Amino acid sequence: MVDNIERLVTRAPETFRQDYNIEVHVLTEVTEIDVKNRRARARGLDTGEERWEAFDKLMIAVGAVPIHPKVTDIDNEGIYGVNTLQSGIEVRRAVDEKRPSHAVIVGGGYIGIEMAEALLLRGIHVSIIDKMPQVMNTLDADMAQLVAEALRNAGVDVHLEESLEGFDTHDGRVRAVITDKRTLPTEIVILGMGVRPNSGLAKRAGIPLGVRDAIKVNNRMETMTPGIWAAGDCVESFHLVSRQPFYVALGTVANKQGRIAGINIGGGHAAFTGVVGTAITKFKDLEIARTGLQQKEIESLHLDHVTATIKSTTRAGYYPSADPITVKIMAEKGSGRLLGGQIVGYEGAGKRIDILATALHTGMTVDEMIHLDLSYAPPFAPVWDPVLIAVRQIVKQV
Amino acid sequence: MVDNIERLVTRAPETFRQDYNIEVHVLTEVTEIDVKNRRARARGLDTGEERWEAFDKLMIAVGAVPIHPKVTDIDNEGIYGVNTLQSGIEVRRAVDEKRPSHAVIVGGGYIGIEMAEALLLRGIHVSIIDKMPQVMNTLDADMAQLVAEALRNAGVDVHLEESLEGFDTHDGRVRAVITDKRTLPTEIVILGMGVRPNSGLAKRAGIPLGVRDAIKVNNRMETMTPGIWAAGDCVESFHLVSRQPFYVALGTVANKQGRIAGINIGGGHAAFTGVVGTAITKFKDLEIARTGLQQKEIESLHLDHVTATIKSTTRAGYYPSADPITVKIMAEKGSGRLLGGQIVGYEGAGKRIDILATALHTGMTVDEMIHLDLSYAPPFAPVWDPVLIAVRQIVKQV
Repeated sequence: MVDNIERLVTRAPETFRQDYNIEVHVLTEVTEIDVKNRRARARGLDTGEERWEAFDKLMIAVGAVPIHPKVTDIDNEGIYGVNTLQSGIEVRRAVDEKRPSHAVIVGGGYIGIEMAEALLLRGIHVSIIDKMPQVMNTLDADMAQLVAEALRNAGVDVHLEESLEGFDTHDGRVRAVITDKRTLPTEIVILGMGVRPNSGLAKRAGIPLGVRDAIKVNNRMETMTPGIWAAGDCVESFHLVSRQPFYVALGTVANKQGRIAGINIGGGHAAFTGVVGTAITKFKDLEIARTGLQQKEIESLHLDHVTATIKSTTRAGYYPSADPITVKIMAEKGSGRLLGGQIVGYEGAGKRIDILATALHTGMTVDEMIHLDLSYAPPFAPVWDPVLIAVRQIVKQV
Repeated sequence: MVDNIERLVTRAPETFRQDYNIEVHVLTEVTEIDVKNRRARARGLDTGEERWEAFDKLMIAVGAVPIHPKVTDIDNEGIYGVNTLQSGIEVRRAVDEKRPSHAVIVGGGYIGIEMAEALLLRGIHVSIIDKMPQVMNTLDADMAQLVAEALRNAGVDVHLEESLEGFDTHDGRVRAVITDKRTLPTEIVILGMGVRPNSGLAKRAGIPLGVRDAIKVNNRMETMTPGIWAAGDCVESFHLVSRQPFYVALGTVANKQGRIAGINIGGGHAAFTGVVGTAITKFKDLEIARTGLQQKEIESLHLDHVTATIKSTTRAGYYPSADPITVKIMAEKGSGRLLGGQIVGYEGAGKRIDILATALHTGMTVDEMIHLDLSYAPPFAPVWDPVLIAVRQIVKQV
């Protein structure tokens, strides 16, 4: 557990001032971009004062906003989105002070399962509801099933194909979640329904949007409006496997894009080639990772494909703490091009996804991958790394 | 600790017989191959009986033999090579029964440091002597220095640039190791001076040898003598980075080569493209991994190159158990082609070498690697994975 919230702040406003000579105005919202006159209207959130700031170049890095359910009573006490450091602090305070016994999480994605772990650790009974027939929608159903089992084994009530209909509230506080199937009494509700690009400001300024309303950018991170740049969870990415624009809200992608935008705004030249859709998380000891295209994406692209799913161990079978790992990979039939992979398993399992991510970047075929000289010693892997066992399996079908 | 030696035997002779219909003759040594008459002479090690066995196709998989020092008295009790399961059993028995207080390990390579860990665990004082100015000769000196520090911090006496001159023995038992600098009293000596291909049998049969006297094979694992195949620690490999023949004795390579040989002998067609020189080990909690070419190999190939060495953490800096990791990578100047990498660090550090190994297989440049979409979440990595921090660093110099 991280015991000091300050440690989660990478750079304070003073750091920007002192180390980089950058003036940071916190608690200030930009409400309008005037593209023609090269100026932005800023409003002090504490003072309410408005002013226009002139710019030569503008960088938009406003991130994403949580998707909220279309139900009323969402502003009642006890209902939290966990999308900012501040909202995390609020949930933590509520848990510490109110000592709730029950929590309901709406959405079984990354935020949902990570919050489930945190709440379980504090002895709270956790229910997850998800309108889909599986948790972890970025995994294929068979791999997500392994995550659901781990959640249930840890005591989480997982309710799938169940939709939020509203809240039962009393005195401005939530006291139950109402779904299309039941009423779940609870003191805390976590909304983990995903995010969407925070692109309203750009849209109002006439800056073109792309897929899922993310801001359209070129590979230098410039928007379609010259001199206006954007990066991070508010912009469109390019998917190197599907060769199509794609929306993903992840810190590691945002960070890379920000660096590219900074180099270019500063007069340099840099390009961001794209992403392959890698993500990782964990629930307790279970590591969950994915990269590339998942089955439904492959199908929607009408790619003829083959699949292999194998079970192995994270270390040599006889080695202590050799634990289960399941690897699933997909390849294009005929060409053998790797399309994607998913890994669910215990310690050491998840980061193996980086092998597949690296292979996807260069468009490797599974035939080329079969003799990858991956590291082997009994404390680290079986003689054939689980990733290679999956490759060996899929090669026969390509 | 693995508590049952049986668990280390992958397949017993009966398994071969029952499951694969393969007749296995254990305790039988082949002493001569008669290429012309397609027969091999076999001698029963227990009975002393000799016979000729006819073959249509012959597979040589005789592995490697330990390199022994050119000193006398090597056959005294208390001196062990640890290159077979049987020799491991003997050391284990000696430690259990004789309860020695001191051990000297000759050679600070993989066997040396793994044995140091095992002996320390049993409360034995360990000294390592190595004639080189560093331990772990397959790492560059700066990275090996981190391993030497860990050894010394754990209480191991590390004596570098010190050569074995002989043993002091009494009544057929070793009682000290004599080096060119000192005498080290000890009850146990472990010889970890590396291995060489067990190619004498092939050589006597006129089968051509290659680099370091390993048996020459083509990419189908056939020797230069038609119908005679070979794989594993007795054969030459092809190094995909140096584009030259190369000798490496590693289980994972042997296993891949054996599979290729088996497919081809069985009438199929398969080729082994080569290796990139990946290896991993650990000393206590410290993980040690390498791939590609090391500095001295790059220099001997006269490749103009650049280097970056960075220190980071295995997880997000604020995350509990974020531990140190050092990553060193090398790239060709001008082209930017990745040439090799080494990683020394704590839990989760070592297996990251597989990212570099995969990149080496496809000849990636560091420019192409800079935006590798590697998995990120605070329990698994900083926002920029340490591997990418090293890449970001080296790109500036290429």
